[in-house]
Amino acid sequence: MSLEKLLKESRKKYEDELAEFLRIPSVSARSEHKQDMVRCANWVSDKLTQLGMKAEVLPTKGHPVVYGELMEAGKSAPTVLIYGHYDVQPVEPLDEWESPPFEASVRDGRMYARGTADDKGQVHIHMKALEAYRQAKGKPPINLKFLIEGEEEVGSANLEEFIEGNVSRLACDAAVISDTPMLSEQLPSICVGLRGLVYMEVRLSGPRQDLHSGQYGGGVVNPANALARIITQLKDDSGHITIPGFYDAVKVPSPTEKKAYAEIPMSEEDFRREAGVPAIGDGEVGVHFIERIWARPTLDVNGLLSGYTGEGSKTIIPARAMAKVSMRLVPDQDPRVVQEAFEHYVRSLKPEGTEMEIVAHAHAMPWAVDPEGPVFAAASSAVETVFGREPLFVREGGSIPIVPMIEQTLETPVLLLGFALPGCNLHSPNEWISLDLYHKGIAIMANLYDEIAKQLA
Amino acid sequence: MSLEKLLKESRKKYEDELAEFLRIPSVSARSEHKQDMVRCANWVSDKLTQLGMKAEVLPTKGHPVVYGELMEAGKSAPTVLIYGHYDVQPVEPLDEWESPPFEASVRDGRMYARGTADDKGQVHIHMKALEAYRQAKGKPPINLKFLIEGEEEVGSANLEEFIEGNVSRLACDAAVISDTPMLSEQLPSICVGLRGLVYMEVRLSGPRQDLHSGQYGGGVVNPANALARIITQLKDDSGHITIPGFYDAVKVPSPTEKKAYAEIPMSEEDFRREAGVPAIGDGEVGVHFIERIWARPTLDVNGLLSGYTGEGSKTIIPARAMAKVSMRLVPDQDPRVVQEAFEHYVRSLKPEGTEMEIVAHAHAMPWAVDPEGPVFAAASSAVETVFGREPLFVREGGSIPIVPMIEQTLETPVLLLGFALPGCNLHSPNEWISLDLYHKGIAIMANLYDEIAKQLA
Repeated sequence: MSLEKLLKESRKKYEDELAEFLRIPSVSARSEHKQDMVRCANWVSDKLTQLGMKAEVLPTKGHPVVYGELMEAGKSAPTVLIYGHYDVQPVEPLDEWESPPFEASVRDGRMYARGTADDKGQVHIHMKALEAYRQAKGKPPINLKFLIEGEEEVGSANLEEFIEGNVSRLACDAAVISDTPMLSEQLPSICVGLRGLVYMEVRLSGPRQDLHSGQYGGGVVNPANALARIITQLKDDSGHITIPGFYDAVKVPSPTEKKAYAEIPMSEEDFRREAGVPAIGDGEVGVHFIERIWARPTLDVNGLLSGYTGEGSKTIIPARAMAKVSMRLVPDQDPRVVQEAFEHYVRSLKPEGTEMEIVAHAHAMPWAVDPEGPVFAAASSAVETVFGREPLFVREGGSIPIVPMIEQTLETPVLLLGFALPGCNLHSPNEWISLDLYHKGIAIMANLYDEIAKQLA
Repeated sequence: MSLEKLLKESRKKYEDELAEFLRIPSVSARSEHKQDMVRCANWVSDKLTQLGMKAEVLPTKGHPVVYGELMEAGKSAPTVLIYGHYDVQPVEPLDEWESPPFEASVRDGRMYARGTADDKGQVHIHMKALEAYRQAKGKPPINLKFLIEGEEEVGSANLEEFIEGNVSRLACDAAVISDTPMLSEQLPSICVGLRGLVYMEVRLSGPRQDLHSGQYGGGVVNPANALARIITQLKDDSGHITIPGFYDAVKVPSPTEKKAYAEIPMSEEDFRREAGVPAIGDGEVGVHFIERIWARPTLDVNGLLSGYTGEGSKTIIPARAMAKVSMRLVPDQDPRVVQEAFEHYVRSLKPEGTEMEIVAHAHAMPWAVDPEGPVFAAASSAVETVFGREPLFVREGGSIPIVPMIEQTLETPVLLLGFALPGCNLHSPNEWISLDLYHKGIAIMANLYDEIAKQLA
């Protein structure tokens, strides 16, 4: 049977099996799901074994890693490492889900459940691609390694150590990661850039306890007012970040890249509608909105807390005020350098009469790649075969710390070819994947084996 | 027996009875204490009856008012209205209390319990003053009316209507209120000014739900950043409030008053220590700190909330941000005018791409009095008799909406002669009253009857 026909006939079977995968509540952040994590890792490992792979569940200090390999193509054939994760985000707030988060529900061509897009559905695409290839065409022309971790949603804390300790085992000619969205259902795309991240918390304290705002107002520094002033001083009126040295290492996109952004078939109005905001704003004045999201660094308050936040009024000068502030970085900003510049500047803004504590929560390196070379040629061909059009090369405003880490530690090109969509409620209630894209993904991946074998021969 | 001797011998008895009063958990804000409120009102009414007063518990739309009168001095004698409240603040956080909040506990000359200072202890001073006077000297030379309400801690919502509906019943030649602190244990003082209040809440919203800060950061307005910018624009670098028209009606203290502030025997260092802050700051640059707290308007953030405030990091652009902002006003600022100016200015700062809602929570008129005339002369004499020194005339940075209301509706001078102390943990855990001041208060009040009779004759 042709691959095309086989894929068509297997749609129901694949979807049913994905539903089974989604049913395991593999929430890595919650200790009550520890056994579910083990169950889910075993499920993945069993499926890889059924595909003819040599698969095992390997312990880490946290949740286990699933590793499988199929080296039948021989030493002269190229080897591709597929990375993905079987863990998912917590599902709260539960009452905002229209169908139960761990029961796949299909509505209007979308499958809804936690993990459909991020990342179980996309991991499953790779499993089914291998299954379909073997059934339709036999032994794949490339060697395959699957590395499916269980801690991506909690920061991949133990994966770096795992990769560093298994460099020769994981050695490959290309790494393929499906954990990003395409531009739209009609516009296939390949992600060639990710922003980095520095996530900080600023805690400002004044009086040792909340004070009566009448007795003390006007006499002591109010940490909430002071923190607002500090936050405001992090950006100027034109949206430029004012931390000294912040932009020093920022690589401005080339004129070609800027031109490409302007030609992306997404209007400000599309973006506005998708974001659900009354108007587009913020970011640097005079910079195209696509460039602002993909290729310019940003600074956002992620959380604020101070004083009385209940109903009605309580007249206090709060003892403390807290802000969580994150910065998305672009090449070649170094998170450690940015963190230091942030701390130094924010400390300089601390008013007399307050104490300040600064906590660093997370770091991620920015990443960008020139879509040149055989891996990108192979991917473009595979996408074109299935979509009838070439993919666009896009960036992603978010961060995937694992990408630059794999690239550097394994010294391999990384291909970010994902099948989610914008607005698919990643990390939110009602997460979904387009079933059309899910099946297209399987076809693309099965085609990619041949293309890679051809291009990297 | 002389009044002095009687008071000395009755100390234990008075304190025991105060402890009984404090044991009733009359928390007006909590509906589960509704029956305790009734019990407490009855307790006060019974005590007033035992003192020979014609007392009753009068219903309002909320918690009842206790009213008692003793008109034995006759029509030609002056009449004094004593106002106080029998309700108390909630006691949370409970685990910060060193002894149970509704069991009086004496340590180092202080009695600790909820309501010791605010205001049961001070109401009890008036009861015991009348009891002592009658026992030691017989019929008081003035007529007395007691108005003890049960809703002061929830904004005296129903008292205005009660007073307006009982103007002739409450008619008096002077109102005496003991609900303020003295400057220190050694420095008796009379309060001649209160700040007014406008308490607002600003709610800013952007996207219809929290957004991924990577996918959208730099593209949509962040309500938390925007709110910080709005708050910052409410004051300039020198602590001046920037709301147009805000200072228009502000009455600058006279040179005599300013001189008096500078002579108040409280140093910046005393104030700093009492407030528990690392350094004195905020407020208007170049203005004496006492003037800043007592006689200048202020603007303080009382609460801030936006986005993710839990442990660690969550990379979102928050859908909403909220700030509670209050302004303390001075004569002759009108809360309605200030509220309107605030709303108008804050709306003008709303960035495109956001929605804004402004809610008004509370209003209080500022108040100030020239300490001239027979009531102040009488009070000074009574204080000097007990303390051996004249009282200082001070202001209070807080607000007591009932004071200007009584003054205007009953057309009477109001004397604010209170016996709490700064740092007595009003509204906080471990509220206390100095037992020395409590007993001095009883003596001062009993002396005041004669002084008022003399001065107002």
